[in-house]
Amino acid sequence: MTLIDGKAIAQQVRNEVREQVAEWVAAGHDAPGLATVLVGDDAASAVYVGNKQKACAEVAIQGFDHRLPVDATEDDVKRLLHELNADPKVSGILLQLPPPKHLDGPKLTEEIAPGKDVDGLTPISTGLLHKNLPGLRPCTPLGCMELLKRHDVDLQGAEAVVVGRSDLVGKPISALLLQANATVTTAHSRTRDLDEVCRRADVLVAAVGVAHLIKGDWVKEGAAVIDVGMNRLDGKLTGDVEFDSAVERAGLITPVPGGVGPLTVAMLLRNTLQAAKDAA
Amino acid sequence: MTLIDGKAIAQQVRNEVREQVAEWVAAGHDAPGLATVLVGDDAASAVYVGNKQKACAEVAIQGFDHRLPVDATEDDVKRLLHELNADPKVSGILLQLPPPKHLDGPKLTEEIAPGKDVDGLTPISTGLLHKNLPGLRPCTPLGCMELLKRHDVDLQGAEAVVVGRSDLVGKPISALLLQANATVTTAHSRTRDLDEVCRRADVLVAAVGVAHLIKGDWVKEGAAVIDVGMNRLDGKLTGDVEFDSAVERAGLITPVPGGVGPLTVAMLLRNTLQAAKDAA
Ligand SMILES: NC(=O)c1ccc[n+]([C@@H]2O[C@H](COP(=O)([O-])OP(=O)(O)OC[C@H]3O[C@@H](n4cnc5c(N)ncnc54)[C@H](O)[C@@H]3O)[C@@H](O)[C@H]2O)c1
Ligand SMILES: NC(=O)c1ccc[n+]([C@@H]2O[C@H](COP(=O)([O-])OP(=O)(O)OC[C@H]3O[C@@H](n4cnc5c(N)ncnc54)[C@H](O)[C@@H]3O)[C@@H](O)[C@H]2O)c1
Repeated sequence: MTLIDGKAIAQQVRNEVREQVAEWVAAGHDAPGLATVLVGDDAASAVYVGNKQKACAEVAIQGFDHRLPVDATEDDVKRLLHELNADPKVSGILLQLPPPKHLDGPKLTEEIAPGKDVDGLTPISTGLLHKNLPGLRPCTPLGCMELLKRHDVDLQGAEAVVVGRSDLVGKPISALLLQANATVTTAHSRTRDLDEVCRRADVLVAAVGVAHLIKGDWVKEGAAVIDVGMNRLDGKLTGDVEFDSAVERAGLITPVPGGVGPLTVAMLLRNTLQAAKDAA
Repeated sequence: MTLIDGKAIAQQVRNEVREQVAEWVAAGHDAPGLATVLVGDDAASAVYVGNKQKACAEVAIQGFDHRLPVDATEDDVKRLLHELNADPKVSGILLQLPPPKHLDGPKLTEEIAPGKDVDGLTPISTGLLHKNLPGLRPCTPLGCMELLKRHDVDLQGAEAVVVGRSDLVGKPISALLLQANATVTTAHSRTRDLDEVCRRADVLVAAVGVAHLIKGDWVKEGAAVIDVGMNRLDGKLTGDVEFDSAVERAGLITPVPGGVGPLTVAMLLRNTLQAAKDAA
C-alpha cells in the first residue's frame, strides 16, 4: 500500500508553476495576475482568500486582493467583476463563495469572463469540460487527477466509481475520469447497494461529506482511493473513507488531511498561469 | 416483454405540442417559430430539414426555411444566425449539421443565442444541462428519457449503463439519467469487459453506431433497453443491440427502426415551444 502525499505533490506543482511563471516573465510577458474577491467578513472565507494570495506571492503571480463590505449590492459585485474582466493585468478571477446571504454566489460567478474563470465553475466552463473543449477546469477535480497521474495510475478502461455528484466536485471529477478513458460510474445519495458499487472500483473517489461513509471492506484489493471529503469528527478533520480499514486493502490511498486538500490551491495557481498564456 | 412503440409515443408528443401551441396562440402570443439553416445541397440533410419543417407545420409552429449556397462563407452563416438571434418571430434556430467541409459546424453552432439553441448542443447549453440549470436539452437524449417516462420506468437508484460517450447522444443521456437519480455508468470504446458492464444494467442505453454490438445475453433479465443506434446492415436499418436475442431477456425494448428515431423531431418541436415560452 502506498500513501499519497498530497502536500509533497502540491509542493511539486507549485515549484513547477513558479518556474514556468519565471520563464513566462523572462520571455517578456507580464506576470500572471489573480484577483480574489471577498464580500463580507466571514472569518473562514478570509483565511481561504489569504492562503490563495500567499500562494500567489510564492510563485510570483501578482495578487489583487479585493474586499467588498458585507452590505455590498449585487450591482457592486458585478461592477467589480466587469472591471476585472476588462483589466489586462488580471488573468484570473476568483469570487470567494459563499457570499453574504442576500447575494447569489453561483449567479454572480457567471459574470466572470470565461477566459478568466480560474475556478472553472461557470456554465460555460462546465460545458467546455463536458464537451472536452479547451477551457479552465475546476481546481479540486484537477487536483484528484494530478494525484492519480503522479502515481502513474492507469485509467484506460479502468472501472472508476465517483461517490458524489456535486457541481463543485463529483460531476467534474466524473467528466475528467471519462476523458481519461475510464469506465465511470457516478453514485450518490440515491444509489442502491453503494457497497457493491464501490467494490467494483479500480479507482474510487469519495466526494460526499459524510465522515467514514465508505467502509474499508467496500474497497477492492489494490484500488486507488481518493478521498475528497473534509469532515469534522470528534474535533478532528477526517475523510469520507474509513481510512484505518481501507488502508488494508487499497493499493494507493489519500490521507485526510494531507491528501487532496493541498492540491486545490496548487491547481488554482496552475489555472491562473494557463489563463495568462491563453490570453496572450 | 413490452415493445416500445416510438412512433406512437412521438405522435402523442406531437399532439400535445400541437394542443399547447394552440393554447399559447389563443392566449394572445405569436406562434413559436423554428428557423432551420441548411448550407449546401447534401441530399440527406435536405430530407432531414424538410421533415423538420413539415413537422412544424403539423403543429402550427411557424417554419423559416433558410438555405445558403454550398460556397457560403463562415461570415455568411454567422450573419444569418445573428439575424435570426435578433428576430423575435424566431424562437428556435437549428443549423443542420454537417455543413460543407470548409465550415466548422460545431463552432458555428456556438453563434446561436442560448435561448434559441433548440438542438441543445452549444457549450453553454451543455453547461446548463450538467449543472442542472434551466435550459434547452439535446433532442435525442430527451427522446430516450421520454420513452422511459411514458413506460413508467423507475429510475430512482436504478443501475443505468450508457454505452457511448458522444457529445450528441451518450454524454447528455448519462447526464439526464443522473438527474433522474439513476446510478449511471458511462461505457465506451475503451471499456474493458463491456459484456459484464452491460449485464448489471437495469436500464441499458446503446448509442454506439456498431450494428449488433450488444449481444442478447448481455441484457439483464427484465432490463429496459433503449437502442439509439442507426446502422445499415445488409441494406436494412438496424440498431446497436442484437434485437432477436435481447428481446428474450429485456423487460422493455425499443425496436430499430420505430424506437428512439421518431422521438428526435418530436422533442425538437417541444423545445421550440419551450424556447418561445421562455422568451416571452
Ligand atoms: N479537498 C478539497 O479541497 C475540497 C474541496 C471541495 C469539497 N471538499 C469536501 O468534499 C466533500 C464533498 O463536497 P461537495 O461540495 O461535493 O458536497 P455536496 O454536499 O455538494 O455534495 C455531496 C454529494 O454526496 C452525495 N451524498 C450525500 N450523502 C450520501 C450518501 N449517504 N451516500 C452516497 N452519496 C451521498 C450527494 O448525492 C451529493 O451529490 C465535503 O466533505 C467537502 O468538504 C473538499
Ligand atoms: N435515433 C436518433 O435520432 C439518433 C440520433 C443521433 C445518433 N443516432 C445513432 O446513434 C449512434 C451513435 O451516434 P453518435 O453520434 O453518438 O456516434 P459517435 O460515433 O459520435 O459516438 C459513438 C460512441 O460509441 C463508442 N464506441 C464505439 N465503438 C465502441 C465499442 N466497440 N464498444 C463500446 N463503445 C464503442 C465510442 O466511444 C463513442 O463514444 C449512431 O448509430 C447514430 O446513427 C441516432
